[in-house]
Amino acid sequence: MASPASNGVPAVNGSFDKSVDFANYFCTYAFIYHQKEMLSDRVRMDAYYNAIFNNKHHFAGKVVLDVGTGSGILAIWSAQAGARKVYAVEATKMAEHAKALAHANNVEDIVQVIEGSMEEVSLPEKVDVIISEWMGYFLLRESMFDSVICARDKWLKPSGVMYPSHARMWVAPVRSGLGDQKMNDYETAMSDWYSFVNDTEINYGVNMNVLSQAYREEHEKYYLKTSLWNSLHPSQIIGTPAVIKEIDCSTATVDEIRNVFANFLLPINVDRTRLSAFAGWFDVHFRGSMQNPVEQEVELTTAPSIDNSTHWGQQVFLLHPPLRVDVGDKLMIAFSMSRSRENHRLMDVNFTYELQLSSGKCFKPVARKYYIE
Amino acid sequence: MASPASNGVPAVNGSFDKSVDFANYFCTYAFIYHQKEMLSDRVRMDAYYNAIFNNKHHFAGKVVLDVGTGSGILAIWSAQAGARKVYAVEATKMAEHAKALAHANNVEDIVQVIEGSMEEVSLPEKVDVIISEWMGYFLLRESMFDSVICARDKWLKPSGVMYPSHARMWVAPVRSGLGDQKMNDYETAMSDWYSFVNDTEINYGVNMNVLSQAYREEHEKYYLKTSLWNSLHPSQIIGTPAVIKEIDCSTATVDEIRNVFANFLLPINVDRTRLSAFAGWFDVHFRGSMQNPVEQEVELTTAPSIDNSTHWGQQVFLLHPPLRVDVGDKLMIAFSMSRSRENHRLMDVNFTYELQLSSGKCFKPVARKYYIE
Repeated sequence: MASPASNGVPAVNGSFDKSVDFANYFCTYAFIYHQKEMLSDRVRMDAYYNAIFNNKHHFAGKVVLDVGTGSGILAIWSAQAGARKVYAVEATKMAEHAKALAHANNVEDIVQVIEGSMEEVSLPEKVDVIISEWMGYFLLRESMFDSVICARDKWLKPSGVMYPSHARMWVAPVRSGLGDQKMNDYETAMSDWYSFVNDTEINYGVNMNVLSQAYREEHEKYYLKTSLWNSLHPSQIIGTPAVIKEIDCSTATVDEIRNVFANFLLPINVDRTRLSAFAGWFDVHFRGSMQNPVEQEVELTTAPSIDNSTHWGQQVFLLHPPLRVDVGDKLMIAFSMSRSRENHRLMDVNFTYELQLSSGKCFKPVARKYYIE
Repeated sequence: MASPASNGVPAVNGSFDKSVDFANYFCTYAFIYHQKEMLSDRVRMDAYYNAIFNNKHHFAGKVVLDVGTGSGILAIWSAQAGARKVYAVEATKMAEHAKALAHANNVEDIVQVIEGSMEEVSLPEKVDVIISEWMGYFLLRESMFDSVICARDKWLKPSGVMYPSHARMWVAPVRSGLGDQKMNDYETAMSDWYSFVNDTEINYGVNMNVLSQAYREEHEKYYLKTSLWNSLHPSQIIGTPAVIKEIDCSTATVDEIRNVFANFLLPINVDRTRLSAFAGWFDVHFRGSMQNPVEQEVELTTAPSIDNSTHWGQQVFLLHPPLRVDVGDKLMIAFSMSRSRENHRLMDVNFTYELQLSSGKCFKPVARKYYIE
């Protein structure tokens, strides 16, 4: 046999299993190296740091809840900005490190680290601010915003504010050599498979060809249909990005984010180029609330950038085959995203795209299915 | 946040959870690419093929049970060797592919694929042969032999035979550059950590140093204490390998394999060299039973080899620091291996080694703990 460690894609059926979820999802966050990766993301750190310290009026003397505190950094900053009390909830053993860190930074009287899942812990009081860094790849991967919504509905005072307060998903048309690479990998894997089928028949008298179609599907999914992490260069964007989803963190419901649908237009604005993928990313804003706005608004964007790339990068959805496009052409997109049946923290994505040339010529719509793993 | 897929090391507590086990362990076997890797291991394939086809008297007209059939290859061979009936049990969706494969190879009337876990399925009759490829890294990783024992005690006729019938674990002293590499990686990671602590204090006013010890332990475990997969060259073995455990598959109990203890001697037989690791591997034999022996005995060994390496390779346990040794020196080893508290399919290993020089000089015993992940 000899199986390497699991790749974390459970083959269990649709039902939600807390232990499986812990094994597959939370356990990553119990490693300091993973916390360090997030703590080393300067764009992320600067955004939260500025959001807190440039808006101390939201924190001074207030009660704060940090959902998924990890190492405790946001809780400690909240305390340093003058919070009266900070409840820092963390599902993993990282909670112990957060406690040590709060102590070492002399805020142990203010920061109370609570080990447990947000859905299950009980706080002694309602809070003025909920702060959380809940964003996954392409915003909603990991489905962690569910826990923030739960915390908000249960523990935020009516006058309370959300940090961040708003979030948006973006899609843009891009050019990239990644698709050629992946197509090449896929074709190599398939030709290797057929040699294998041949060898197995000759050497061991068993014809494996009946599995070829399933092998092809497995590898199409892996190489061509699974979105890729990439830190794109801004010059790879060949059209005007579109906002495909806006979330008001103060009011959003789980129903509102469970399925995302959008119809939008992507105008190509680069001469004679190749559309080889769609890219997805997000931004969030710290604006406070209508009644209780920030003094200084802060933005955290994960858009392609030369100097300010993030650990989130962008998610790249490859097009096979790529399309020749020109400035003035436009793409009509019907987009949908829902949670994977097997793992509610992963996503199934559909892009249906229709190219309209500047000449007026329209191509037939093409539908493509992707997986965010 | 942005967490990649889990690395499969569950942070759940000791209790055995079937769904977690499925997500972490079985799901790998549901991918054809993983089956293909095993089916492409010529040493493995030849051993089972020869064991079956050179001992047809064990199969002709008999009832066979294949535990963890995967793609179904052993079941199909058993049918081709003349079995009257083959029950092929498989816990994953791979069962469907095994069915298709049996059909495509015209043995669908003989091979009955049963999707389910061995512990839970029911067979209509007792069997003459249990065949299974249950061996993990260093033999016992994955703890799959438990299921074979369960199958044997429940379904094997008293006169029945086990394929394979015997298994052994081996340990040898080796030289390798891997340890230097890993020590280097570890030191780089630690120096990077201290820069990070410094930067975080300067840029964000939080002192992370209290986590340094935990970070060090996390990285010691990852880089230095976790055994490594390697396909060693035979010339890297610098002493006489020792058998540290022998298993009779016809009689072994789970208690017998749950903890492995051994005291043994490793004589160095290479001039003035460096002992930088212990290597562990296994072999299995197909001998049938005392009452019902094979006609031709077959061996499957995963020892270091130039031409016959396997996908199991060897597990390498690094020594830090390495020891200068010479021909005539010997190592007294106290070895123990038990299942990880967090995941019963992973192993905790202890080596206590004591170097005795040919001059008679003895060094103090050194105890080292390792993890097979």
